[in-house]
Amino acid sequence: MPSGRKGQVAAGTNLLQAAQELGVELESICGGRQTCGKCQIIVEEGHFPKHGITSRPDHLSPPAALEKEYDQEHNLNGRRLACAAQVEGDVLITVPEESQAHKQIIAKAATERVIEVAPAIRQLYVEIEPAILGDPRGDWERLAQALEDQWQLTDLEIDIKALPTLQSTLRQGDFAVTVTIWQDRKIIRLQPGFQEGVYGLAIDVGSTTVVAHLCDLRTGELLSTKSAMNPQVRYGEDLMSRVSYANSEPQGLKRMNRLIIQTLNELAEKATSEVNLSPQDVTDVVIVGNTVMHHILLGIHPTQLGVAPFALATYSALDLKARDLGLSLHPACQVHVLPLIAGHVGADNVGVMLAETPGEQDGVSLIVDVGTNAEIILGDRTQVLVASSPTGPAFEGAQITHGQRAAPGAIERVRIDPQTLEPRLQVIGYPEWIDPQAGDEVPPEMKATGICGSGIIEAIAEMFLAGIINSQGHFITSATERSPRVQLKGRTAEYILVEKELTATGSPIVITQNDVRAIQLAKAALYAGTKLLMDHRGIDRVDRVVLAGAFGSFINPFHAMVLGLIPDCDLDDVIAVGNAAGDGARLALLNRELRLKAVRLARAANYIETPLETTFQDEFVAALNLPHATHPFPHLAESLPDIPEDQVRERRNRVRARHGSRN
Amino acid sequence: MPSGRKGQVAAGTNLLQAAQELGVELESICGGRQTCGKCQIIVEEGHFPKHGITSRPDHLSPPAALEKEYDQEHNLNGRRLACAAQVEGDVLITVPEESQAHKQIIAKAATERVIEVAPAIRQLYVEIEPAILGDPRGDWERLAQALEDQWQLTDLEIDIKALPTLQSTLRQGDFAVTVTIWQDRKIIRLQPGFQEGVYGLAIDVGSTTVVAHLCDLRTGELLSTKSAMNPQVRYGEDLMSRVSYANSEPQGLKRMNRLIIQTLNELAEKATSEVNLSPQDVTDVVIVGNTVMHHILLGIHPTQLGVAPFALATYSALDLKARDLGLSLHPACQVHVLPLIAGHVGADNVGVMLAETPGEQDGVSLIVDVGTNAEIILGDRTQVLVASSPTGPAFEGAQITHGQRAAPGAIERVRIDPQTLEPRLQVIGYPEWIDPQAGDEVPPEMKATGICGSGIIEAIAEMFLAGIINSQGHFITSATERSPRVQLKGRTAEYILVEKELTATGSPIVITQNDVRAIQLAKAALYAGTKLLMDHRGIDRVDRVVLAGAFGSFINPFHAMVLGLIPDCDLDDVIAVGNAAGDGARLALLNRELRLKAVRLARAANYIETPLETTFQDEFVAALNLPHATHPFPHLAESLPDIPEDQVRERRNRVRARHGSRN
Repeated sequence: MPSGRKGQVAAGTNLLQAAQELGVELESICGGRQTCGKCQIIVEEGHFPKHGITSRPDHLSPPAALEKEYDQEHNLNGRRLACAAQVEGDVLITVPEESQAHKQIIAKAATERVIEVAPAIRQLYVEIEPAILGDPRGDWERLAQALEDQWQLTDLEIDIKALPTLQSTLRQGDFAVTVTIWQDRKIIRLQPGFQEGVYGLAIDVGSTTVVAHLCDLRTGELLSTKSAMNPQVRYGEDLMSRVSYANSEPQGLKRMNRLIIQTLNELAEKATSEVNLSPQDVTDVVIVGNTVMHHILLGIHPTQLGVAPFALATYSALDLKARDLGLSLHPACQVHVLPLIAGHVGADNVGVMLAETPGEQDGVSLIVDVGTNAEIILGDRTQVLVASSPTGPAFEGAQITHGQRAAPGAIERVRIDPQTLEPRLQVIGYPEWIDPQAGDEVPPEMKATGICGSGIIEAIAEMFLAGIINSQGHFITSATERSPRVQLKGRTAEYILVEKELTATGSPIVITQNDVRAIQLAKAALYAGTKLLMDHRGIDRVDRVVLAGAFGSFINPFHAMVLGLIPDCDLDDVIAVGNAAGDGARLALLNRELRLKAVRLARAANYIETPLETTFQDEFVAALNLPHATHPFPHLAESLPDIPEDQVRERRNRVRARHGSRN
Repeated sequence: MPSGRKGQVAAGTNLLQAAQELGVELESICGGRQTCGKCQIIVEEGHFPKHGITSRPDHLSPPAALEKEYDQEHNLNGRRLACAAQVEGDVLITVPEESQAHKQIIAKAATERVIEVAPAIRQLYVEIEPAILGDPRGDWERLAQALEDQWQLTDLEIDIKALPTLQSTLRQGDFAVTVTIWQDRKIIRLQPGFQEGVYGLAIDVGSTTVVAHLCDLRTGELLSTKSAMNPQVRYGEDLMSRVSYANSEPQGLKRMNRLIIQTLNELAEKATSEVNLSPQDVTDVVIVGNTVMHHILLGIHPTQLGVAPFALATYSALDLKARDLGLSLHPACQVHVLPLIAGHVGADNVGVMLAETPGEQDGVSLIVDVGTNAEIILGDRTQVLVASSPTGPAFEGAQITHGQRAAPGAIERVRIDPQTLEPRLQVIGYPEWIDPQAGDEVPPEMKATGICGSGIIEAIAEMFLAGIINSQGHFITSATERSPRVQLKGRTAEYILVEKELTATGSPIVITQNDVRAIQLAKAALYAGTKLLMDHRGIDRVDRVVLAGAFGSFINPFHAMVLGLIPDCDLDDVIAVGNAAGDGARLALLNRELRLKAVRLARAANYIETPLETTFQDEFVAALNLPHATHPFPHLAESLPDIPEDQVRERRNRVRARHGSRN
């Protein structure tokens, strides 16, 4: 139990061997030496009723000295060590979850999935013959022989950074050693005696944010997650600025490469020290990132990614040594880089595909990873299409008059009263909605400093819903009469979101005509890319919209749809999955088969080069309107969550009216 | 011609293809693009007489534009490019030596051999499809495809240090590139367009001297040889002192490792700059060295090599990256380390075996590599035995009162007049024999500073031949009456080789009783080891004695035999081969098959652990006598080369008399 397997074994066979014969995967590190305690099982019945009346498990050999010793030290609590208990008659055995080999974890993603923990590296305990005079073999050759005898592993190599530790480790452990082996072929770490604990990092290198997940590669457990700003932002917010920097500055690539490596080393230090480990304990790493981040991290000049035809240096998955990248982890630590798809669709997208598996879901999923470049995945069981749309950095607050990154003080949510045009706000770092009209006061240190990506999206959607701007994004002249917050200034205009008295800067925070235009351009690029993929697929609606990326988690689906950032769809089917790229990296870290799957997904994905599509420009222009010049958004009028009931009704009416007038 | 192959090919087949079909190996780098000029051939006859009367080679297609262009630039001098000339009738073609693939070189060794130049790395010229919009593949994938299409290579990898240069190199060469590939599976260097020149270093890391040979891996040519003192000597002359230093000093290993790496980098710089290359042009390295040097170079603590059972960390051949050792060569440069045999028999010995091939010679060869540890190889076609004897550093001038390393000012040759007991000397750096008795004067800067290994061997042998010491190595009391140069001082005694007026130091250079003893101990260890191997093999004489090692080249075989350093044998069959270990490294650099052969030789060698042999102590004691307490040396009286005729006769008589008296 619980596999339900049954069968006959020769009397005297121990339960570990019996499990192997029956195809039941039972954990073991020490290889049956009664020392690791991984193969503990529960004896349900020593024999079946037909054979007698007692349920005493006397159909197993009694515990001998070694097992008793283990029991005294670790308390078996009535369980037996499978490697010690020999079958002498019929028995019914339960393998508890912690003793099952290849533990499974639940993938935390939009679609919960069970993932088998079967990483690329594992630990093996082995005892080797001591060196003796007359045996010319080296310690490595004796170890390799022991690994063949005890673990059936052949054609092994040892990393040149592990080799120097071999002799002292063997003697420290009295010729017993725990080896960490990569892909069952290369020894990368040696520890004296019996040791437990093998750790890896899953890393997502984003243009703005870098995230590192530290995982226990035996249990699959996520031990800690640390993130930091990508320090390259000082050389440009968006990818193309970084490419330009590398092009114009002779040391630019080297400088950006060193900065990101240094950041990864710091994250590794933080993530490991939080759980009393050291970066030296990390022996495997999986990295994802967009194509420019990928190239810079590997020391490859990104210049080709800045000009057509956007040629990658390579789109293959890579197995590297951490030391060759300058990462200060275990000296022989491995690095696996997920494959890329095309010039603008990187390993981060492959991570998203691995985590979200659009090709395995019912119906058509649209996955958008909104960032400086929006990556778009459209897929179902028959086909997965991918594209990249150059949205620019507006969604991240750049190119916006008072835009800023998501940080304390940034306005992240906005509601505008459609009658009074008075706003209510949420500011990062302050838990309550702020209603200045109602006299809400905030502590001075919580005053707004600017507006971040999710705030700007909500603000412009609300301005549209409140009749401050029209569906073309133009300020409506008559709105100036409705509120002094709307000001026309010659050929331009602005909406005063926060008066200067209430800001941290002492200047008002405003949304200008230019800001609206910047968001329109960004969302039109995203929508047009999505539309192109839908056309390729021959569909005019999707069954599910997945917002990926940390930023995606903060976007309100209603407002995103009002802006026409995503196509019409039931709002209940719009879900945010957070850092799906990082989740994909974590999955590839925990399961080596998923690395092969990532390559299959990357190669099977049908990449649509949006600039090559003749209809892109037309789609782009049509998508500049809010939500769109021609496409209907039937779901918009119906599902308006998260909005007070009295506002909902009025909005519905207005939205219907506007749709009617435009279509 | 000259292979004599003949056959029929379809009309229109070019001569390069025809050669391939007929199994004639014809050089080509550009893959038949009429650019590299490697496949030049000489058209002997355009058709055979029976077909006509003219010998004009009209049975080949005439040169077209590309070939004419090549001719104008490089002057084909009447030859044709095989890849351009198409067969249209019977032709007789000579492939000149420089166009033959797999050129052969003569191995400079005791036994001259022909070695095929077939190194582990080679250059290939390839043209790839330019990147275009709509093709998501990376440049690497396009290059790999081109290598498959044009060179039938599959499953290729690219080194992470080569990958960053790919895109710029391809564009610089207009999508034509010369790749340097290791073992036909890993790309390690990329150069734009058509390039020629692939270089490697063969390195012998000796305890005292480090030698680097720079080789052209296309022609097999030895371009330059540089040597330097091993800077680790400051931490101990002999191997065991270095092991002690590493044991006693926490930073000792690291320090010695850095010093040797630094020295190798300096040698690479010198060897390459001499021929206008740079260390970056070196893409392959083969390293040999004794076991302690091997371990220190790889960063492995040598402590186990200092205590029984003398366990090696590994005895396998290793393929490494130069960068992982800290070598400043091409960033993706490969390193191959030849295998070891046992705790005291290293890769240097495998190099010697590879160069001298005792297992392929008629008769039994004895090869001794005299150094701090003497390595002994005894072999013929049936069996190869190896052993190591701890001779200590006496042969290298250490532990000798006025001993010094072989350097200008060191006495390297000594003759003692058996009548007058007056010496004649040769000093390193001065071309003439110096006879102080004859009033020879030398420039002050050429005065003797001490005596080096070969000098001490000759001096003691001459002292024995002149009756100053007896066969037990004791000073003969009566000798003091024959010359004031012999002085007894209580329990000890000395022979004044150079009076203080004639030395650079102002002190006399003397050979003391202790010096004689030190040489006796060293030579007895070597002889006893040799004798053990001969006993194992069941022989009492050898057919050939090979003195390997730079030092071996300076030993006079006659004096070595008088001392009983080597067993009796015809003096004509005692040969010095210089740095055979380095020669072996060079062979493995030039031919990848020899790397596999080295592993076979190392594993097939029968290692005799001398301390395990119960007879070793007895053999050692018997070998303390000059030349030996019991073994006859019949050849000693007969061949005395390099000695003036008048001395020869007297010596012969004395030697005969002594042999008679001792046996």
